[in-house]
Amino acid sequence: MQAAVFHGPGDIRIERVPDPRIQEPTDAIVRITHTAICGSDLWFYRGQSEYQAGWRTGHEPMGVVEEVGSAVRHVRRGDLVLAPFAISDGTCEFCRKGLQTSCVHGNFWARDLDGAQGEAVRAPLADGTLVRVPDRVEGDEKLTTALFPLTDVMGTGHHAALCAGVVAGVTCVVVGDGAVGLCAVLAAKRLGAERIIAVGHHADRLDKARAFGATDVVSGQGPEAAAKVLELTRGGADHVLECVGAASSMDLAIQVTRPGGTIGYVGVPHGVAEKGLDVMTLFFGNRTLRGGPAPVRAYMKELMEDVLAGTLDPSPVFDMTVDLAGVPAGYAAMDERRALKVMVKL
Amino acid sequence: MQAAVFHGPGDIRIERVPDPRIQEPTDAIVRITHTAICGSDLWFYRGQSEYQAGWRTGHEPMGVVEEVGSAVRHVRRGDLVLAPFAISDGTCEFCRKGLQTSCVHGNFWARDLDGAQGEAVRAPLADGTLVRVPDRVEGDEKLTTALFPLTDVMGTGHHAALCAGVVAGVTCVVVGDGAVGLCAVLAAKRLGAERIIAVGHHADRLDKARAFGATDVVSGQGPEAAAKVLELTRGGADHVLECVGAASSMDLAIQVTRPGGTIGYVGVPHGVAEKGLDVMTLFFGNRTLRGGPAPVRAYMKELMEDVLAGTLDPSPVFDMTVDLAGVPAGYAAMDERRALKVMVKL
Repeated sequence: MQAAVFHGPGDIRIERVPDPRIQEPTDAIVRITHTAICGSDLWFYRGQSEYQAGWRTGHEPMGVVEEVGSAVRHVRRGDLVLAPFAISDGTCEFCRKGLQTSCVHGNFWARDLDGAQGEAVRAPLADGTLVRVPDRVEGDEKLTTALFPLTDVMGTGHHAALCAGVVAGVTCVVVGDGAVGLCAVLAAKRLGAERIIAVGHHADRLDKARAFGATDVVSGQGPEAAAKVLELTRGGADHVLECVGAASSMDLAIQVTRPGGTIGYVGVPHGVAEKGLDVMTLFFGNRTLRGGPAPVRAYMKELMEDVLAGTLDPSPVFDMTVDLAGVPAGYAAMDERRALKVMVKL
Repeated sequence: MQAAVFHGPGDIRIERVPDPRIQEPTDAIVRITHTAICGSDLWFYRGQSEYQAGWRTGHEPMGVVEEVGSAVRHVRRGDLVLAPFAISDGTCEFCRKGLQTSCVHGNFWARDLDGAQGEAVRAPLADGTLVRVPDRVEGDEKLTTALFPLTDVMGTGHHAALCAGVVAGVTCVVVGDGAVGLCAVLAAKRLGAERIIAVGHHADRLDKARAFGATDVVSGQGPEAAAKVLELTRGGADHVLECVGAASSMDLAIQVTRPGGTIGYVGVPHGVAEKGLDVMTLFFGNRTLRGGPAPVRAYMKELMEDVLAGTLDPSPVFDMTVDLAGVPAGYAAMDERRALKVMVKL
């Protein structure tokens, strides 16, 4: 079969790879129908994170089950399924408490597993990992596209909102106008936030943030953006959703958090350890830092209900669609910021 | 009057300073009866934090009100009072929500105000800052000494426990066997923690931790101590109380926190910004970092009730008592770890 393979910074190629096979009785083989390119894929694409030549790419799989191992109970051949970016057994202490990203048998797509940017994947721990989509969705491309972001960005935005303690009536700040930031706006709106201030620096994306429910937008970066948010909130918000992971955006998030407030952060920290987190501002204002990789598996069914009910649709985060052959062009488009997020349809 | 004045690292002197006078109608003058030397005083004593020659020292005042300004309503001449290490107006947004350390009119003892290590202080914002002790305590030295740590260390230990989410039945880890760490053990016990693992590296202090309610003690530092705690907890505790503030103890606290768990940290970070917080371990395990300077003012009345009821007594944290003239010797004893915490009785 064909799949995307990383060969080096800026060098993703579609090439022939071995067909996936059931290796464990808990495996399933999923033929990919939808996948995507993630902002976090750009770290290795740009050579800014460790990634080995030869590794597959992609961690947002949606598709149809082709085959299941003998121990698989919850999905069967022909089911349309979503999979989160994290593989999880569904039965360990952490899975039981909804923290599937810390599953004791967990793993992540690509690297030593198949990547989602390919024709098919072997899905380990299929019962814990895969979530079946109701039959009625099949063939409804609009609904399918609205559900697909539950594999990562929508669940991640929701995690940011939960970690930041967003509840009905609050004022919150969303730092970042990428796909996760936009989904965080949707999530905050869905949870009832009354005022949602989106901070970014792309006019078109901030327009999307408004369409998703942001009541205010601040265009800018660094101390200037912080000053604007502090003015709008008269001293910061109690709930700040950090949706980038860069050192500068972490700084900004901390600066716009009101004393006693909480930063929910979900972007993989990038350069933060090197630059150093502003622990003194956190500490002296009793600001809480809470977050991590989103256990999107825990949120899938709840969010799916809203998508199926027609009250949640994160699909506008996609502004470019490619086929598998178009994946390298999709990376380039996202790298050059010509695309916000690229969907891959097979 | 006489008071302790900082002249440089290792050089604290008792000398004549101007008598405090009412400057604002919201001021009170408090004649100090009890104060203490804090572990955080050692940072400037050792030349490890910015502190100017000529600044007064001490931030744990207990004493008798001598005079009040015309606007003071809640205390009067002759009242025995406690004051937290932070001055607060008691009426701002942050005071109302129990975060007096972020009071919009707040300040801290010493530096540009009087220090508590002296015969008297001018207490600004007396109504918000001072807490009256019931009359029946006067003359009861045992009760007085048990109440006095509510000015700082007991409230700080309690804050660590609250920030770490300690509730009845949990397992928690207390990192640090200084006065705050020991008070954190007391606080965790008081909140009903079932298992309290105290980590330190002084046998006598760990004995005190056991007496205060620790069910397990781990003597050691760094990765070795972390390994022991991870073994005792089979992978870390959900509630970790960081009571030192050093880079090494923050690392240890993060390492022994179970995925999804919370670190309550209350020691002023010292060298943490320089070394860098281990944000990747925090992030990938969805570990929450929550804490800051304890709003001990918010906890005083609740904790006082328990002290008066005889169910809480943090006074064993003091293992040396000096008079005002003995303050320099008290610093030296704490610096050389001959004393855990020094009480100053005037």
